[in-house]
Amino acid sequence: MSQRRPDRFHIARETDQPEPLAGWRLRLNDIIFGAESPAGKAFDIALIIAILISVMAVMLETVGTVQHQHGGWLVRLEWFFTLAFTLEYGLRLLCVRHPWRYATSFFGVVDLLSIIPTYLSLLIPGVNSLLVIRVLRILRVFRVLKLFRYLNEAEMLLQAMRTGYRKILVFLYAVLTLVIVFGSIMYLIEGPDNGFSSIPRSVYWAIVTLTTVGYGDIAPVTAIGQFIASAVMITGYAIIAVPTGIYTAELANQIRIKRDSRGCPGCGKTGHELDADFCRFCGESLQTGHD
Amino acid sequence: MSQRRPDRFHIARETDQPEPLAGWRLRLNDIIFGAESPAGKAFDIALIIAILISVMAVMLETVGTVQHQHGGWLVRLEWFFTLAFTLEYGLRLLCVRHPWRYATSFFGVVDLLSIIPTYLSLLIPGVNSLLVIRVLRILRVFRVLKLFRYLNEAEMLLQAMRTGYRKILVFLYAVLTLVIVFGSIMYLIEGPDNGFSSIPRSVYWAIVTLTTVGYGDIAPVTAIGQFIASAVMITGYAIIAVPTGIYTAELANQIRIKRDSRGCPGCGKTGHELDADFCRFCGESLQTGHD
Amino acid sequence: MSQRRPDRFHIARETDQPEPLAGWRLRLNDIIFGAESPAGKAFDIALIIAILISVMAVMLETVGTVQHQHGGWLVRLEWFFTLAFTLEYGLRLLCVRHPWRYATSFFGVVDLLSIIPTYLSLLIPGVNSLLVIRVLRILRVFRVLKLFRYLNEAEMLLQAMRTGYRKILVFLYAVLTLVIVFGSIMYLIEGPDNGFSSIPRSVYWAIVTLTTVGYGDIAPVTAIGQFIASAVMITGYAIIAVPTGIYTAELANQIRIKRDSRGCPGCGKTGHELDADFCRFCGESLQTGHD
Amino acid sequence: MSQRRPDRFHIARETDQPEPLAGWRLRLNDIIFGAESPAGKAFDIALIIAILISVMAVMLETVGTVQHQHGGWLVRLEWFFTLAFTLEYGLRLLCVRHPWRYATSFFGVVDLLSIIPTYLSLLIPGVNSLLVIRVLRILRVFRVLKLFRYLNEAEMLLQAMRTGYRKILVFLYAVLTLVIVFGSIMYLIEGPDNGFSSIPRSVYWAIVTLTTVGYGDIAPVTAIGQFIASAVMITGYAIIAVPTGIYTAELANQIRIKRDSRGCPGCGKTGHELDADFCRFCGESLQTGHD
Repeated sequence: MSQRRPDRFHIARETDQPEPLAGWRLRLNDIIFGAESPAGKAFDIALIIAILISVMAVMLETVGTVQHQHGGWLVRLEWFFTLAFTLEYGLRLLCVRHPWRYATSFFGVVDLLSIIPTYLSLLIPGVNSLLVIRVLRILRVFRVLKLFRYLNEAEMLLQAMRTGYRKILVFLYAVLTLVIVFGSIMYLIEGPDNGFSSIPRSVYWAIVTLTTVGYGDIAPVTAIGQFIASAVMITGYAIIAVPTGIYTAELANQIRIKRDSRGCPGCGKTGHELDADFCRFCGESLQTGHD
Repeated sequence: MSQRRPDRFHIARETDQPEPLAGWRLRLNDIIFGAESPAGKAFDIALIIAILISVMAVMLETVGTVQHQHGGWLVRLEWFFTLAFTLEYGLRLLCVRHPWRYATSFFGVVDLLSIIPTYLSLLIPGVNSLLVIRVLRILRVFRVLKLFRYLNEAEMLLQAMRTGYRKILVFLYAVLTLVIVFGSIMYLIEGPDNGFSSIPRSVYWAIVTLTTVGYGDIAPVTAIGQFIASAVMITGYAIIAVPTGIYTAELANQIRIKRDSRGCPGCGKTGHELDADFCRFCGESLQTGHD
Repeated sequence: MSQRRPDRFHIARETDQPEPLAGWRLRLNDIIFGAESPAGKAFDIALIIAILISVMAVMLETVGTVQHQHGGWLVRLEWFFTLAFTLEYGLRLLCVRHPWRYATSFFGVVDLLSIIPTYLSLLIPGVNSLLVIRVLRILRVFRVLKLFRYLNEAEMLLQAMRTGYRKILVFLYAVLTLVIVFGSIMYLIEGPDNGFSSIPRSVYWAIVTLTTVGYGDIAPVTAIGQFIASAVMITGYAIIAVPTGIYTAELANQIRIKRDSRGCPGCGKTGHELDADFCRFCGESLQTGHD
Repeated sequence: MSQRRPDRFHIARETDQPEPLAGWRLRLNDIIFGAESPAGKAFDIALIIAILISVMAVMLETVGTVQHQHGGWLVRLEWFFTLAFTLEYGLRLLCVRHPWRYATSFFGVVDLLSIIPTYLSLLIPGVNSLLVIRVLRILRVFRVLKLFRYLNEAEMLLQAMRTGYRKILVFLYAVLTLVIVFGSIMYLIEGPDNGFSSIPRSVYWAIVTLTTVGYGDIAPVTAIGQFIASAVMITGYAIIAVPTGIYTAELANQIRIKRDSRGCPGCGKTGHELDADFCRFCGESLQTGHD
């Protein structure tokens, strides 16, 4: 029962414990923050659809031909959704116990960031600044991260990432060292005439090659350059095994631990291995709890 | 045993239980739907060869030089196979107990879709519509999906996909969020002058980069754009570990479950290898429990 | 002791059981076919070096500048190695018990194919035919496959491939279906004007994209084409998990089985799981053989 | 215990056992080589920041625009770090028991190589030689490899690589054979007119394709060439499963071994999870066996 480990996806939920809220605020909280009641579920589905449409609209606005023909109602659509999301943001602030905690939580900030850009585009006109605003608008998509709450699987995937975190950092460091060294060597060998105009640009080429992306905008021309490039490619092809190995091993571990839903009759803790006969935390026999 | 879990690849088979069928319909059913009798096996092999040849013919018809020289007999070949498959479709309808169930099953629909396009090409002439027909013709290939019936392995691969289904959806959502955010940022940074002409096109670039495909038709030109592109590449290179990890863990689980199914008659323990004749825990013979 | 499963890498060795061979033929056999004696080991190492040099020479001969400057001694080098390998081939035939069995074994054929091309280049001069000969020469590299004999690991890697063989075939069939369907759709959408000039060429593009190679020689231009291409890329990025999952699961199984070197005191068979107390083949207790 | 297996990352540490060192040398050793004391930790962090800045400076120096504007202080920065690292190298030699052992250890050589290039650039002026020096400068990054000492995880990743070493060599040999054979075939089929100007260049293309990099600088043009290229791509896409499978299996084994090390004082069984306090087989406390 002492399993209350910090869980970033539930921070917003923690602020809206139903007890102190009453009347319409409680009902509103159930609808807006909850997904258990029919109304709450309907609200969440409507919200996701609204977000998808508004993101689509923002994206289409940047397409020349579409903007030319339908620019008018795309702008109106954008304003409609911005006002709707603003109203929703206000209601959220109203119906939680600790508005400030919500406002400073991850999703509170995302909720705010997903309505500000449209208002900002009124205050600061001009082409360049407008472009900056457009990309901020896309952050609205992050709201859909709430979907994660519905999917227990996401937590398992993230948990596997967290436990393998340090191994992945070591791997990234090794990759960075490799691309800097290989990039510098290629800068020396190929030189500015063949597109390797500086070490940073050569490092960019090394990343493009090691990750097996291979745009072809910069490609080795000399025989020795192609030989070293081959070495980089085979290295990249082989070491992709490392993150995959780390993640697979951690996830398999996670699935194995998860599978074990039995609670110990002594201390109540879960996460025993399937063939365990005694609790690994208190030594109590698990036989009685056996299914 | 009581292992009759629903299996979508056997729906068609379920409709043709041999009891109520008699005489030539029963024999025909054995040949067309069955693969156990020599005639049934020969029929299936002939069918696969016919499908491969007809798909090849449809594909070659679109090659300019081939169409010019051999267009005549390619059309005749197409008509021959269409008529043969139509006859086969009719016989299938004749020899199953519930023709409607077959016609609405997955393979019933595929069987029908693989003969319609040729007839449609008679009714609706014209270049554009013909092109639409050509691609429908290729659906005929789906018929070969029946090969799956022979391979128990396919069921295991699909089962591992089904159990990991929700994890993969979460992963796809994360990938989509990443490419939309990265695409928008690159649209802002590189802009229409460097090929990033709209957010959808920039998102397309982000997908090309994140999946490590890297056509090079759109590639970052500015230093900051190349820096962000490097981040996208390394992200893509690292998170490929996630689907691989999910699938490997699920498949290993699937293989383990397959081994686990037999219980020892002596001690009741499971987890024996598939070729084991004796229990590895108590030495009891496993023969009686053998299926 | 009844473990004599067919092993293709030992076919040549089977033909040279030492008993019936005597005198210099026995010693020669030990040197040429064996790797246990110092002379045999030296011979093998010399052979590998000779093969590497001759392959390098054949490759360099095709490089314009090198061929111009050093063409003379490259040809002489090629003839030297061809004659040396011919002598070796003759000695191999002399010192095995069943020369015909050797000659028709995998390595016997490879040994012959690695000397024929040079002689053929004398009989059939001419530019085009010479080109054919050059590529046959490279088959000489296959000889080095004998290295596999020294590495027990290779057998494990191949065994994992053999057990996962059917799963991989199913996967390849699914991939082929996908690229044919996607290729046909793209042929329709993009058309000959954007490089998708025929279905086979569009299928080639689909393979380039699905495997995340992405040359960029053919790339979608239309918006809908780029959308479908994105679907192909994400599919390719996700389903790479399937062969990896298959192979990892099979190899982990292989390593687990391999680790079990205990022989059963009853029937002598090995390959028991580490926690097995009784032989799974004869039911005998394994406790006495426990280390 | 008797767990003192040879560990190459601790060679430098072995030379500075604290007993024979006294006074300021002992304290200096703790600061420079150790990371346990606050001063040692501060020194290590300062060193990493200095290395990152100096590497950045060397990289920026090769960018045309930056070099033009800030070339002066970039050179001064380089000299400042070179002198600082020289001082540090001298202090390291002073405070270890066996200076020669340190100087010839891996990190001793790296420390020296990371200061020499700047001095060399004084002795040997000239454009070409300067370029050679620049790339040697980047070796300074290798110093950061010391980071590995702080991360126990790196050792596990490397251990998994060491145990899978021979399997990976076999795999690399198979890959090399494949690219030489496929490269030669493509040289024959496509020929110099389509960019396949020699076998080495065709082998380079085969590596670019098999590793799924796919620059597109050389791409097949003929139908048969595209067919073989497709085979290479699918091969590359499928056999990436091999290194991943090897590494994942070895790493999972490594993680398992880490768990396995403690034996229960009650029943002697191993394989407890790292955070277990009680044996899962007999319920005995594991605290006494805790390290």
